[in-house]
Amino acid sequence: MAADPFDELLEALRCLPGVGARSAQRMALELLERDRDGGRRLARALETAMRDIQRCASCRNFTASEHCRICRDDRRSDRVICAVESPADVLAIEQATGFDGRYFVLLGRLSPLDGIGPEDLGLDLLEARLSDAAVEELIIATNTTVEGEATAYYLREMADRHDVRVSRLAQGVPLGGELEHTDRSTLAHAFASRLPLAGS
Amino acid sequence: MAADPFDELLEALRCLPGVGARSAQRMALELLERDRDGGRRLARALETAMRDIQRCASCRNFTASEHCRICRDDRRSDRVICAVESPADVLAIEQATGFDGRYFVLLGRLSPLDGIGPEDLGLDLLEARLSDAAVEELIIATNTTVEGEATAYYLREMADRHDVRVSRLAQGVPLGGELEHTDRSTLAHAFASRLPLAGS
Repeated sequence: MAADPFDELLEALRCLPGVGARSAQRMALELLERDRDGGRRLARALETAMRDIQRCASCRNFTASEHCRICRDDRRSDRVICAVESPADVLAIEQATGFDGRYFVLLGRLSPLDGIGPEDLGLDLLEARLSDAAVEELIIATNTTVEGEATAYYLREMADRHDVRVSRLAQGVPLGGELEHTDRSTLAHAFASRLPLAGS
Repeated sequence: MAADPFDELLEALRCLPGVGARSAQRMALELLERDRDGGRRLARALETAMRDIQRCASCRNFTASEHCRICRDDRRSDRVICAVESPADVLAIEQATGFDGRYFVLLGRLSPLDGIGPEDLGLDLLEARLSDAAVEELIIATNTTVEGEATAYYLREMADRHDVRVSRLAQGVPLGGELEHTDRSTLAHAFASRLPLAGS
């Protein structure tokens, strides 16, 4: 006998991050009681997305076409490439900055202990792009974790081989943050990396 | 041109209660990066549930069959019916108590201001069930809101007409609750409804 559709829906909803037994129940009942059209729309959107969304052939971001929207956009500059760990980082940078260059999505970070090497991050593809004479700068926007830093180091050496200028996101005290509540290593780094104020 | 499948997925996920722009993004990326099988399974479960789940012909709970699992269960007693406002209340009572009678799901509460009358709550169906000689007790488990109380009053009159005993969930201080933090009306009600201790 097949599983009960309601139980199966509860179980399936729990694959969503942050959804436990109680929220799955709340979601299922809400859709059944008040929004069946929304539920059907979500079913179709999930099916299409899981089937059609692949990695962009040039930057490895998620896209339903061969090349993603950003790579297809002629108005963006080919001179700067920003390397990030995940598609979420692309969205964050797009929303927060006016960056108009290209991206490269590693979809992970170098982690020898987990068996993740340069080939898993598509670094051959990035190297091919860096060898293009149009590229002048590589912005390394990996996370400031141990693995993110190791990945940044590797990317820097690669860029050096192709005479591409390298930059890294500034690290320091977050805006709106209070020194008292800033963790020690961030504070130590920000103190040691203090910058002269203009005109002083 | 059709909407981008990724944007469409983000938009569709927001029909889930408690899911805003940021969690939709996190869910979409998590499924795409790490759990496409889960995403496909959720799509199928949603489609099946939205298409097949209807109201039980005898108790109005959600079910994919004509009668729900509880109404079909021969081991449960026909002598007691518990009337609740929503399917979530059935799940809550099943999980918290050893109740082995039947349910009736109102799927709402009487609310003349919103135009919700007895026929919208399927009360003719409940009345037909109360007229069955096997039914001895109606447990009224509507919420303790104004509308829930009005609904309880209406149900009580209906049960009286059919000589069915009526009970209502006990109201008072929650277990594990501190008097200091109990709201005034609950405390006043619990104080006025105090019960003699056995043997005193």
